[in-house]
Amino acid sequence: MPPQAGPQPEDPASDRTARTGFWLVGARGGVATTAAVGWSALTRGLIGTTGLVTELPALAGAGLKDWDQFVLGGCELRPGRLRDSAAEAGIPPALIEACAADLDAIDARIAPGVVHNSGPAIDELADEQADGGLARRFPTPRAAVDAIRADLDRFREQQRLERVVVVVTASTEPPTDEPSLPPTWDELNATLTSTDCPLRAGSLYAIAAIESGAAFVNFTPSLGASCAAIDDLAKRSGVCHAGRDGKTGETLLKTVLAPMLASRNLEVMSWVGHNILGNADGRVLSSPEHKSSKLGCKDAALQSLLGYSPQSLVSIEYVPSLGERKTAWNHVHFRGFMGVEMTLQLTWQGHDSALAAPLVLDLARLVDASAGRGESGALGALACFFKSPCGAPLAGHSEQFAALLAHYA
Amino acid sequence: MPPQAGPQPEDPASDRTARTGFWLVGARGGVATTAAVGWSALTRGLIGTTGLVTELPALAGAGLKDWDQFVLGGCELRPGRLRDSAAEAGIPPALIEACAADLDAIDARIAPGVVHNSGPAIDELADEQADGGLARRFPTPRAAVDAIRADLDRFREQQRLERVVVVVTASTEPPTDEPSLPPTWDELNATLTSTDCPLRAGSLYAIAAIESGAAFVNFTPSLGASCAAIDDLAKRSGVCHAGRDGKTGETLLKTVLAPMLASRNLEVMSWVGHNILGNADGRVLSSPEHKSSKLGCKDAALQSLLGYSPQSLVSIEYVPSLGERKTAWNHVHFRGFMGVEMTLQLTWQGHDSALAAPLVLDLARLVDASAGRGESGALGALACFFKSPCGAPLAGHSEQFAALLAHYA
Amino acid sequence: MPPQAGPQPEDPASDRTARTGFWLVGARGGVATTAAVGWSALTRGLIGTTGLVTELPALAGAGLKDWDQFVLGGCELRPGRLRDSAAEAGIPPALIEACAADLDAIDARIAPGVVHNSGPAIDELADEQADGGLARRFPTPRAAVDAIRADLDRFREQQRLERVVVVVTASTEPPTDEPSLPPTWDELNATLTSTDCPLRAGSLYAIAAIESGAAFVNFTPSLGASCAAIDDLAKRSGVCHAGRDGKTGETLLKTVLAPMLASRNLEVMSWVGHNILGNADGRVLSSPEHKSSKLGCKDAALQSLLGYSPQSLVSIEYVPSLGERKTAWNHVHFRGFMGVEMTLQLTWQGHDSALAAPLVLDLARLVDASAGRGESGALGALACFFKSPCGAPLAGHSEQFAALLAHYA
Amino acid sequence: MPPQAGPQPEDPASDRTARTGFWLVGARGGVATTAAVGWSALTRGLIGTTGLVTELPALAGAGLKDWDQFVLGGCELRPGRLRDSAAEAGIPPALIEACAADLDAIDARIAPGVVHNSGPAIDELADEQADGGLARRFPTPRAAVDAIRADLDRFREQQRLERVVVVVTASTEPPTDEPSLPPTWDELNATLTSTDCPLRAGSLYAIAAIESGAAFVNFTPSLGASCAAIDDLAKRSGVCHAGRDGKTGETLLKTVLAPMLASRNLEVMSWVGHNILGNADGRVLSSPEHKSSKLGCKDAALQSLLGYSPQSLVSIEYVPSLGERKTAWNHVHFRGFMGVEMTLQLTWQGHDSALAAPLVLDLARLVDASAGRGESGALGALACFFKSPCGAPLAGHSEQFAALLAHYA
Ligand SMILES: NC(=O)c1ccc[n+]([C@@H]2O[C@H](COP(=O)([O-])OP(=O)(O)OC[C@H]3O[C@@H](n4cnc5c(N)ncnc54)[C@H](O)[C@@H]3O)[C@@H](O)[C@H]2O)c1
Ligand SMILES: NC(=O)c1ccc[n+]([C@@H]2O[C@H](COP(=O)([O-])OP(=O)(O)OC[C@H]3O[C@@H](n4cnc5c(N)ncnc54)[C@H](O)[C@@H]3O)[C@@H](O)[C@H]2O)c1
Ligand SMILES: NC(=O)c1ccc[n+]([C@@H]2O[C@H](COP(=O)([O-])OP(=O)(O)OC[C@H]3O[C@@H](n4cnc5c(N)ncnc54)[C@H](O)[C@@H]3O)[C@@H](O)[C@H]2O)c1
Ligand SMILES: NC(=O)c1ccc[n+]([C@@H]2O[C@H](COP(=O)([O-])OP(=O)(O)OC[C@H]3O[C@@H](n4cnc5c(N)ncnc54)[C@H](O)[C@@H]3O)[C@@H](O)[C@H]2O)c1
Ligand code: NA
Ligand code: NA
Repeated sequence: MPPQAGPQPEDPASDRTARTGFWLVGARGGVATTAAVGWSALTRGLIGTTGLVTELPALAGAGLKDWDQFVLGGCELRPGRLRDSAAEAGIPPALIEACAADLDAIDARIAPGVVHNSGPAIDELADEQADGGLARRFPTPRAAVDAIRADLDRFREQQRLERVVVVVTASTEPPTDEPSLPPTWDELNATLTSTDCPLRAGSLYAIAAIESGAAFVNFTPSLGASCAAIDDLAKRSGVCHAGRDGKTGETLLKTVLAPMLASRNLEVMSWVGHNILGNADGRVLSSPEHKSSKLGCKDAALQSLLGYSPQSLVSIEYVPSLGERKTAWNHVHFRGFMGVEMTLQLTWQGHDSALAAPLVLDLARLVDASAGRGESGALGALACFFKSPCGAPLAGHSEQFAALLAHYA
Repeated sequence: MPPQAGPQPEDPASDRTARTGFWLVGARGGVATTAAVGWSALTRGLIGTTGLVTELPALAGAGLKDWDQFVLGGCELRPGRLRDSAAEAGIPPALIEACAADLDAIDARIAPGVVHNSGPAIDELADEQADGGLARRFPTPRAAVDAIRADLDRFREQQRLERVVVVVTASTEPPTDEPSLPPTWDELNATLTSTDCPLRAGSLYAIAAIESGAAFVNFTPSLGASCAAIDDLAKRSGVCHAGRDGKTGETLLKTVLAPMLASRNLEVMSWVGHNILGNADGRVLSSPEHKSSKLGCKDAALQSLLGYSPQSLVSIEYVPSLGERKTAWNHVHFRGFMGVEMTLQLTWQGHDSALAAPLVLDLARLVDASAGRGESGALGALACFFKSPCGAPLAGHSEQFAALLAHYA
Repeated sequence: MPPQAGPQPEDPASDRTARTGFWLVGARGGVATTAAVGWSALTRGLIGTTGLVTELPALAGAGLKDWDQFVLGGCELRPGRLRDSAAEAGIPPALIEACAADLDAIDARIAPGVVHNSGPAIDELADEQADGGLARRFPTPRAAVDAIRADLDRFREQQRLERVVVVVTASTEPPTDEPSLPPTWDELNATLTSTDCPLRAGSLYAIAAIESGAAFVNFTPSLGASCAAIDDLAKRSGVCHAGRDGKTGETLLKTVLAPMLASRNLEVMSWVGHNILGNADGRVLSSPEHKSSKLGCKDAALQSLLGYSPQSLVSIEYVPSLGERKTAWNHVHFRGFMGVEMTLQLTWQGHDSALAAPLVLDLARLVDASAGRGESGALGALACFFKSPCGAPLAGHSEQFAALLAHYA
Repeated sequence: MPPQAGPQPEDPASDRTARTGFWLVGARGGVATTAAVGWSALTRGLIGTTGLVTELPALAGAGLKDWDQFVLGGCELRPGRLRDSAAEAGIPPALIEACAADLDAIDARIAPGVVHNSGPAIDELADEQADGGLARRFPTPRAAVDAIRADLDRFREQQRLERVVVVVTASTEPPTDEPSLPPTWDELNATLTSTDCPLRAGSLYAIAAIESGAAFVNFTPSLGASCAAIDDLAKRSGVCHAGRDGKTGETLLKTVLAPMLASRNLEVMSWVGHNILGNADGRVLSSPEHKSSKLGCKDAALQSLLGYSPQSLVSIEYVPSLGERKTAWNHVHFRGFMGVEMTLQLTWQGHDSALAAPLVLDLARLVDASAGRGESGALGALACFFKSPCGAPLAGHSEQFAALLAHYA
């Protein structure tokens, strides 16, 4: 018999109360695939813990579940195998090979995704596939929510899970018309049967998760659970959630550099960011409608960290030659004592999925712990992970990180 | 009669208890000159408060003295006028003109400096001047200390000052042989009459200040008061001090970026910094002996912020064409999840004196408040101002800044 | 009598045959103003020749007229004085003062400009001024051309000029619908009385210049004389012209770096440029219609220098805090032996007018020499000055410069 | 029988007159190893021709030998296999595997290297190996030369070669005391029997090559054949040679950017370069004695391209985390019209061996063609390949490249 490693999810003897399921929405995307390979490699001891916040010594006593207490599943629009999306994401062949059995097992737990009001680029994504790929479409939001709930219930049941955490790592949707949303769950719920409801799939995943008692994480700039009515539902349901838009590159830098400039009473006159990236996320973002979600999120940070609004420009361009690499150039023009002008330029050459995937794992693991403690509503303590944190005012990264440790360590 | 502005220091009617004197060592250097012009321009309402930490709203209730309650004086090696050193420092002619009366008044309060064991570049600086410029040399450290004390006493008396703060902004000295220094003041004091004593002028200014009851700030990388024996003296004398090496550029960036990388569990493999600058400070630093003081200070920060020691290189080159402008290029090579390598590059184009001068004013003002409160020994709460803070462990800038506010606000 | 310097244009005794007039279109813009101050400062010996191509030793024997043999005039939309536009362009007050008499004299020779089909941003520029500023509008292109000719004739007559050179340094117009233009002058001329004619003011200045026998330089990305029909007119009229779009920054770099990469058989995969600038030109370019002229010109260079078309993106953003400073960041992603990927990044921090103004003076001086030699049609030998040279295939900067020397030296 | 590809060097039937041997000195170094793998991959059709100058269409008619007409051999100090040095050089395992048979065959033709006066870092390199590795040492230069000649003769004989080209890609030696060298071969030759002769191994390889009738290429900053006396020998012997120091990164940029700045009459005030690299070459260069060879070469280029000497600083640091990657940051400070100051910054992120290896192959191929044409002495037409070209004045890269085409195309 070949040597076995990794968790054995279908094992009937395994302790139901000990395991949590991660349901990845957009499960074969760059971020989710990297998270899946990374999770497998971690449980098999093939990689170290670099990049994982929850593996910092400071969180050693936080009582988080072990990596092998998690089971991965999810949903997707595009067919195919995780092995192949892992290769596309630039993961070394040897590592994919070593994790192949786990990836195949996860593939078997990937359901078709739900497309609803998802914007032109995602429609196109789905339509590129033969027969619209795996996309399921429903006449009303409520019908979509119920279908997603059924998926989650099946996952919980089949895998005998103590808890489920839904993490959205799907493509960025266009902005939702937030002002039109009612403030309470009862009002919003009433609109779900109407075709006028402006919610997009990302928010329907959130509602389905919460209704089914699963904690929810929105790693994308899409609205997800970031509105009063869905937060209301979460609080009433005793379910916790976290979001919005994983903070991996340029904004991470901004949330340490802007407070530093502020602490010296230096006056920022303009902050220009130019991002180039080559992956599928970049392709979706090159559609102007979808891009505006991303850019909207980025602007707010600066304003709230400095206490005033310097000119701020953020542009994102899709440059396929870069693959998973993202390069962000930032030019900060500021003024000091006696009005002397100075500049700070940054070039960040990051690998998008390698930065994002460990945060997805960290978030699911921390949200699971919060769920275990019975926390509900938006988890402001997780603000350090997000560009547009819910449940906490925008703050410097350092304060956010201190809040994380204060809450979990 | 022409309109008069600025404080009228020699006015016999002025309230002796209300005024504090700043004694700037290296008073015609780039940093001190810019501080002097800036102080004058502030009191005359000619410039805003950008760049001044003590003018942040968060410190509005700290009970600091007003700018016009300070009187400036100091000592120097080179003759000349502040008007001229201001022009050399690149300050706009119109501003110099507007502050000329104040500058002339300060010039009248600049005594000859003390050179002792100051290293080849400072010896050369002094010797470039006709007749060794203003440099005074003494056979023993004790004789030098006593001469400096006499200067400070005269300043306090003539200006009818409530308190005096000595701020060293003189050229960087070579490193002092610290291990050879005894741990207590009594032992160190005993060596001051011997020519073997390894202390350099910067530390003698510290001793003289403390013995005369003046608070002490060391803005330079020289040793100053940063040793156990001088701190012992300060504590016994009920005098407070702060130092070492103003944090204005590259290290400021490091103390926010390294904690950020650490908070994400990213592994820094190498951190390379290359600094080019064109002012007199750069010229002194281009002497290898003096440079090693600067480089020594910079290395420690990274080690303590990350918890391990990546390869770290910091080089400094003198490039006269840049004048007061300093450009620092930093290349940070780090590793993330699954071992993926990434880089962050920074180009900081700062104006050295414009960054340093307001901190000198802030430090003198805050140390004066501490003196007023009766604090003694190293002021760890001022760590955010220094590359190698005394009285506090090295920490991230954000925590340091929070500590400042906690102490003074 | 105070000492006099600079040419004395109204002097009846001056030798008519020796003087050439430069007619600057957009005479109070950043580039033209800097050219005017620079010309005055040169004739008065106040500045050196740095930045002037025609002052290179290699062109010493080219038989060009001396700077004091030129007379400046031109036309504008906005009223005001050159002294004031010089201050706006960031020229030091002392230099403006020293050249004030010349500037006032030039002001007296600035006629109202012609607006025709000039695009929304220029319309707005004109309308911002009281009573539409100095803008003159005409019902047909022909009427506009005749009015401009009258201005040029008056300038030649009043200043007793041997020759006139018209240089367009006006705001960038939107692209002209080139395919709709007929290939010969006779056909184009016939359309000038119709309101359907797609020509914009920039081309009408070209036609007027050529019809009046004045050489023509188009320093802007607008069409100007860069079409077959106007070149046909120039050749028939024995008049020479040069253009299009002064090559001052990013493209200058591209035209040396792309040939270098090509000479090593390195394969460029993508070339991304991001430009930020803060002057009036940047404001006009921030209007999308006008921007497309600029971006169109930039793309072509790369294609023709490499022999293939890598992905190429050029963006331009208006960042007022930068004033006359323009910062261009370029990211070049290329592949070498065995497919190894590498990058080159550039940050160019230029001063737009200081780079452009000497080229305007050089071009007018060289075109004047060509006119003196009886050359007609597009002057391909001036290609090194332009982003989209007419009369010469796009080539590397080095070959273009060699062609310049071959023609004139 | 397994499929066979690549040349079959030991085949007795192969046409002796058609084949040229490349003798690589430092054959298991990063550059030579990459050249060997690249040559094998080329002959097997596994890689394209990107990065190879001799594969440019412009040289298609130059009558160069085909890649499979070359046979590789050489000498080294360190034992081991090319497969392993290829892995160290970061070449993908699959490519090494595919070329393994060729690499093994070359390994069989690698003789022990000669160490003579090679400087501390190379001595250390040799001594690191058990029993001094493969290093051979001789009492006099003449004895070393004769031993090298015997190696070359054996290579020519055993491989039945028409011609041999020796290419030095060994570690950089310290500078040779050039002024002490006599100007003629007869004089120099007379010193070879003395232990006072300052020549280092690199020059002894050159003498041996020329004496044995083999063309010689010096890809390193070491002296090699770059002195009058060895050139004298080459001319008399009818042998051609080329050198010195492959131009792959920073200097390549300088030789296009400096002429561009000069063509605009812009005044360079300072040019600062900071290089970080992590390979074995970097380790040797981190020894100060060896570094000075590299730095010396770099300085001269700028001076001769601008016609004057701005402040120029080039530093090189060994940063192991970078492996084969070299990052060069350049900061160019220049002045334009009216004295306005501007800057250009460059960050070159190259892969050292991938840039150098194809040039080694190109050079050997071109020098072979020159040898075939009977050319002798320094080949100035190859200047575009070198930082310090012999046989041609330093010139802009573009002119050098034009000279290459003029000579060979
Ligand atoms: N990588 C980062 O650094 C980072 C940082 C912050 C946020 N994000 C966000 O994370 C998200 C994922 O990024 P990525 O790089 O993996 O993108 P990706 O395009 O590679 O993956 C997204 C996947 O989601 C799938 N998908 C789209 N809509 C879906 C739906 N309605 N239901 C189910 N599946 C759906 C797509 O088919 C695709 O496979 C994006 O929104 C991105 O903006 C990424
Ligand atoms: N500018 C910054 O951003 C910054 C930041 C941190 C630390 N510093 C430090 O501040 C110090 C001052 O910098 P600067 O740019 O003003 O340098 P500077 O060379 O312009 O001025 C130093 C002055 O000190 C004088 N001096 C030297 N030795 C003296 C002595 N023994 N007694 C009295 N005067 C003496 C010199 O004559 C000179 O005028 C340096 O040590 C520098 O390293 C500066
Ligand atoms: N600065 C550079 O480096 C550079 C390089 C290449 C090209 N250019 C081009 O040069 C032109 C001038 O640049 P600038 O920075 O001086 O711009 P600017 O906006 O400062 O000046 C343009 C001037 O033209 C005037 N104008 C507009 N339309 C006119 C018309 N129809 N007739 C007469 N005057 C008119 C405007 O009122 C304005 O004063 C722009 O087209 C720019 O794109 C500049
Ligand atoms: N881009 C580039 O990589 C580049 C550009 C220009 C010049 N160069 C020069 O090319 C040379 C090789 O670079 P590398 O990266 O391959 O270095 P490397 O250190 O990887 O290889 C040099 C090899 O030479 C061997 N060697 C040293 N002395 C020898 C001797 N006397 N006889 C025989 N072998 C000897 C060493 O054992 C080593 O294996 C260096 O001098 C370098 O400066 C490289
Ligand atoms: Na992404
Ligand atoms: Na090398």
